[in-house]
Amino acid sequence: MPSMSPDPDPRTLEALFRPRAVAVVGASREAGSIGHAIVKNLIDSGFTGPVFPINPKARSVRGVPCHASVEDVPGDLDLCVLVVPAPAVVPVLEQCGRKGVKAAVVISAGFREAGGEGVAREAALREVALRHGVRVVGPNCMGVLVTDPAVRLNASFAAVAPLEGNVAFASQSGALGEAILARSRDLDLGLSAFVSLGNKADVSGNDLLAFWGEDPRTRVILLYLESLGDPRTFARVARRVTRAGKPILVVKSGRTAAGARASASHTGSLAGVDEATTTLLERCGVQRVTRVEGLFNLARAFSHQPVPRGPRVAIVSNAGGPGIMAADAGTAYGLEMATFSPQTVAAMRAVLPPEASTNNPVDTIATATAATFGACVTAALVDPGVDAVLPIYVGPSVMDVRAVAAEIVQGLERARAVGAGGKPLLACFMGGRVAEAREVLLRARVPAYDFPEDAAQALAAMARFRAWLDRPEGAAPPLAEERARLRALGADLPAGWLDADQAFALLEAAGLRVAPRAFAATPDEAADAAARLGAWPVVLKADHPDLLHKTEAGAVRLGLSDPEAVREAARDLARRLAQHGLDPARGRLLVQAQVQGGRELILGARTDPAVGPVLLVGLGGVHAEVLRDVALGVPPLTDRDAEDMLDGLRGAPLLAGYRGQPGVDRAALVDALLRLSALAEEVPRLAELDVNPLLALAHGAVVVDARARLE
Amino acid sequence: MPSMSPDPDPRTLEALFRPRAVAVVGASREAGSIGHAIVKNLIDSGFTGPVFPINPKARSVRGVPCHASVEDVPGDLDLCVLVVPAPAVVPVLEQCGRKGVKAAVVISAGFREAGGEGVAREAALREVALRHGVRVVGPNCMGVLVTDPAVRLNASFAAVAPLEGNVAFASQSGALGEAILARSRDLDLGLSAFVSLGNKADVSGNDLLAFWGEDPRTRVILLYLESLGDPRTFARVARRVTRAGKPILVVKSGRTAAGARASASHTGSLAGVDEATTTLLERCGVQRVTRVEGLFNLARAFSHQPVPRGPRVAIVSNAGGPGIMAADAGTAYGLEMATFSPQTVAAMRAVLPPEASTNNPVDTIATATAATFGACVTAALVDPGVDAVLPIYVGPSVMDVRAVAAEIVQGLERARAVGAGGKPLLACFMGGRVAEAREVLLRARVPAYDFPEDAAQALAAMARFRAWLDRPEGAAPPLAEERARLRALGADLPAGWLDADQAFALLEAAGLRVAPRAFAATPDEAADAAARLGAWPVVLKADHPDLLHKTEAGAVRLGLSDPEAVREAARDLARRLAQHGLDPARGRLLVQAQVQGGRELILGARTDPAVGPVLLVGLGGVHAEVLRDVALGVPPLTDRDAEDMLDGLRGAPLLAGYRGQPGVDRAALVDALLRLSALAEEVPRLAELDVNPLLALAHGAVVVDARARLE
Repeated sequence: MPSMSPDPDPRTLEALFRPRAVAVVGASREAGSIGHAIVKNLIDSGFTGPVFPINPKARSVRGVPCHASVEDVPGDLDLCVLVVPAPAVVPVLEQCGRKGVKAAVVISAGFREAGGEGVAREAALREVALRHGVRVVGPNCMGVLVTDPAVRLNASFAAVAPLEGNVAFASQSGALGEAILARSRDLDLGLSAFVSLGNKADVSGNDLLAFWGEDPRTRVILLYLESLGDPRTFARVARRVTRAGKPILVVKSGRTAAGARASASHTGSLAGVDEATTTLLERCGVQRVTRVEGLFNLARAFSHQPVPRGPRVAIVSNAGGPGIMAADAGTAYGLEMATFSPQTVAAMRAVLPPEASTNNPVDTIATATAATFGACVTAALVDPGVDAVLPIYVGPSVMDVRAVAAEIVQGLERARAVGAGGKPLLACFMGGRVAEAREVLLRARVPAYDFPEDAAQALAAMARFRAWLDRPEGAAPPLAEERARLRALGADLPAGWLDADQAFALLEAAGLRVAPRAFAATPDEAADAAARLGAWPVVLKADHPDLLHKTEAGAVRLGLSDPEAVREAARDLARRLAQHGLDPARGRLLVQAQVQGGRELILGARTDPAVGPVLLVGLGGVHAEVLRDVALGVPPLTDRDAEDMLDGLRGAPLLAGYRGQPGVDRAALVDALLRLSALAEEVPRLAELDVNPLLALAHGAVVVDARARLE
Repeated sequence: MPSMSPDPDPRTLEALFRPRAVAVVGASREAGSIGHAIVKNLIDSGFTGPVFPINPKARSVRGVPCHASVEDVPGDLDLCVLVVPAPAVVPVLEQCGRKGVKAAVVISAGFREAGGEGVAREAALREVALRHGVRVVGPNCMGVLVTDPAVRLNASFAAVAPLEGNVAFASQSGALGEAILARSRDLDLGLSAFVSLGNKADVSGNDLLAFWGEDPRTRVILLYLESLGDPRTFARVARRVTRAGKPILVVKSGRTAAGARASASHTGSLAGVDEATTTLLERCGVQRVTRVEGLFNLARAFSHQPVPRGPRVAIVSNAGGPGIMAADAGTAYGLEMATFSPQTVAAMRAVLPPEASTNNPVDTIATATAATFGACVTAALVDPGVDAVLPIYVGPSVMDVRAVAAEIVQGLERARAVGAGGKPLLACFMGGRVAEAREVLLRARVPAYDFPEDAAQALAAMARFRAWLDRPEGAAPPLAEERARLRALGADLPAGWLDADQAFALLEAAGLRVAPRAFAATPDEAADAAARLGAWPVVLKADHPDLLHKTEAGAVRLGLSDPEAVREAARDLARRLAQHGLDPARGRLLVQAQVQGGRELILGARTDPAVGPVLLVGLGGVHAEVLRDVALGVPPLTDRDAEDMLDGLRGAPLLAGYRGQPGVDRAALVDALLRLSALAEEVPRLAELDVNPLLALAHGAVVVDARARLE
């Protein structure tokens, strides 16, 4: 295996999240300045330890006595916040190191983001931090907040402080951070911590993932990222955290099409601009959200309610339309509409008028009282075929929505009393006095959404998380010998496009089956080689370094059934190469046994600039090239990952056979993908690889053509 | 053509939207009651005419003198609001009719939505309304609001009143209505009018579309609908309104998969649950939004800013990440990133530090001053290659965002001064003092979004609307003879599944080319028929009323090249039918000339319960059946619509030829679709029709097999 960066050590962030004493270097008496705002926020948030403003020119800031420098502070100091001008940051950080400070938050801008000398300044900052073992957040960030009552740290200049809660939030955009804090308050979403990552000179999203993954006060992790840091570390840590039951929700800005790298290979062009990142996140159970607003939607559900046991939702509404909107949105997002048991239908029928509908989505009609509505919610909650309930109540301002909310909360208690607890309930209240209902619900930790689609989207995300938790990891064969061979070969092969024999050898080293082949320089040699292969008919191909698309150039001749046909075809190929302006002397002739039957697939691997190695599979010909029906994966694959890739193809049913065409050996395809994964892992120099086609047969799968480029 | 319902007459709604006097029947002295709230709202909104509370038991409500009945009101009365108990509504409406009232808003519930006798009550209400020519909004609605200063009507019990503006909003859900009014105020989105449609016993969304389409105070129309009313009228009116330049934005709740009708035909099963509605909306230029929040996003842009001339956006941001997020979202929604002219790059370079990026999205980096940021926005605005500008400013609370906003507004003015006006600008401000920036921008009618994705989504919707306005309508041949033949044949044919000859005859009546055919009862007759066709080889098929999928049953025999082969195949077919338990005596033998070559397509038509006739096209075999690659259309088609359907197929490139396979006659496919459209229009009894396959040749297209069912 290639060398892996070690996992982040969460213990190194203890001083950041649970400091016992904090200093603010650059504390200012000037109201409105950042150096003033931070001292004020630290005091106002009720930080549980001492705060030391550092300012050689002031006696006190907001009544708190100043010191001239960090080193003058009496006793231990865990955390320093730096608000000094950029050129002063590195010297102050040196002082911090000497003082034994364990963590620093560098608010100051003027580093990498400013270009020029800022870049060197950031490198120096990083060097000092590593040398002294000071974990540094920033520079160019908004600060850090911790709501734990034992800490109560607001080491930021944010104008809004978050509520206490169980959602940890890291943002790579400081400005977005303030918008996030404001929105979280509007939505009553409590945070355990908030970190503005800034330039990520030292502390990265991966560090925070590792810390919050083990933090008992954090139940949900939200990340707004512009880059993934080390993608392999991210994948490893994120997978561990999510598999342990803690959801990670991410907004990740990608790359525009304008920035997409032009690529000569199918794998490069088919894999899409940002799909590799999406695949990586999916494969480690991280939910990617495209909008910041969506992040809040999902976080409210995960923060307050349990993850459902499955995707079957019951929708109970007192108005048809919003119920149907929720059902539409829910099924579009992947929920299933639960089918009620006869008992549930009877329980609802007993309280509802005949015009009401007890089909899911339930429509209690507008005349339903709070008690009736609550009874229907309860009936849905206790149905064993229901995994989650979504009550939608629309009431004009004259209705007592508080009573309805109380009945919903009672329903949860009644369900718990009969052993049907643990099911999530997300409410949606529309119309008049929504705030009153929200207050009642929030006390019971039930989030109240403004619109049905939002509740449905959040519930669907929870169901997807359940599917991730229930999904078997799968297994992969060790392929120890193959990996050793691949490492050796990968180190030996030249850079640039490999010739056909080298590409085939690489695939054979991974244990893939390649069609029997021989190489020749002249028509006569080709005829002899074909005879030696001993398997007629044969295929003749030109193997030429300047020829990437053999079929288009007419450089493939099929069905040659005797030596004379081979000789003739070889002479013809030479003429065709010459017509394309290619010097036949620079190329060779490739003779292969012709594989009969089977279905063409494309396999591929490439190194994505943001994600690292990415694998691709598609059905051959029209499917991949015209319909762009391909699926991606990220190594290391398990057999389950490989199965998911195959199932991810729209054309997957064709692999099982279609209208008389026989099915193919699916196990052989899974095996081929696992071997491709090993190849990508063990040959980090691999830039791009196309296996096109791989012929999938009724038994086994055979590589017929391949191209590869190494760095 | 089948009979069409007439267009709604907007003049009949004058009294509703511009009443000179209003009565409230059921006005109440009891604070907190709906009958009180409506009088209060009418008075508080400053209605410009007299308000007459009607209550036989009270002398006044909120100081306004009461009358005992509508008929006691002196002088003319245009509008009545009814808040009486349901059983009293119809009698009061009779009084309104006698009084000459022209419009009524029935708030009262207890009609169709309550089931039982409410259904009959609603029918009676409708009858009275039609008889007296009173246009009725509701019943079971929240009321009507008009902000026109010459009217100022708040005939609703909503707790929140909207701001004055140019957005007209109709909601089929009353409760959602209150949420909508509250949200519109939060977002500073002014409304021209708001109508809570309730049960739509009389006034429908189509009526409002027709009225607002001609209302000079309304620039954007928003609809929240649960049903489309008459879909043909909707399509006709909506298309006229949008083509005239007024955008219509719709949230339409659809139907869940559980409600999808099981169907034996490909067209039925392939067309999807809600795609017919989406297609109808698309084909009349209406933008369907899946979330209510999205409706507001789009409305803010259309309300305040001009529609761009094209899809090329310039993004100017002082932070990389949000700029990229906007670019990601914008391109995903269909925007194009503009390429700047050398002048634009030079103008930006002149004010930006070297580390800044003048590639689109422009990153001014965080050090940019308000003036620098404004200069870059101006440079982008005046670039002829830019259709719209999206400035994104992220600033901590200490920055003077008001100055930045002012510079952006100045940029618009500078651009106008040099003849580069008329381009939309949607701003996004994140971070500290957003409200201050929003205030400055709003005065200049620039919406300020909280998150970049929202601004990008809104701009993309505007660009789509421009594409719709620029799109040629296309034309269609009159097909007068064919239509006459279709009407006659459509009336004559029996109900249920047609036999093969009838289905072919229907297609031939539409002018589609069908492969030469003959029918026979015995093997000998089949051989003779084949000989008479005179075009060998022939195809033999079983035409049996109980056999829907011929190929699967082995009931198709290809490539029969002489009479003896036909005889043999006919005997074999009879055996196979018997094996499937089908009585050969109930069927016939169909002999067809075998069409050589070509590409298989599927054409289809069906009557969708929500939308009416829908057309379908797909590539045959795997493409339609496994990959579900089909495109829909709604008659009447133009040639441009037909071209769009073909281009909507993922496999569309295959029609132009692929890897040596020749292209097909696209004009013949367009012609076939236009004829299919005429068939669907002229045969309203058509329930479903599959043409499978249509063979598309290098010249022309030939129907090889077809099934059809009539009501």
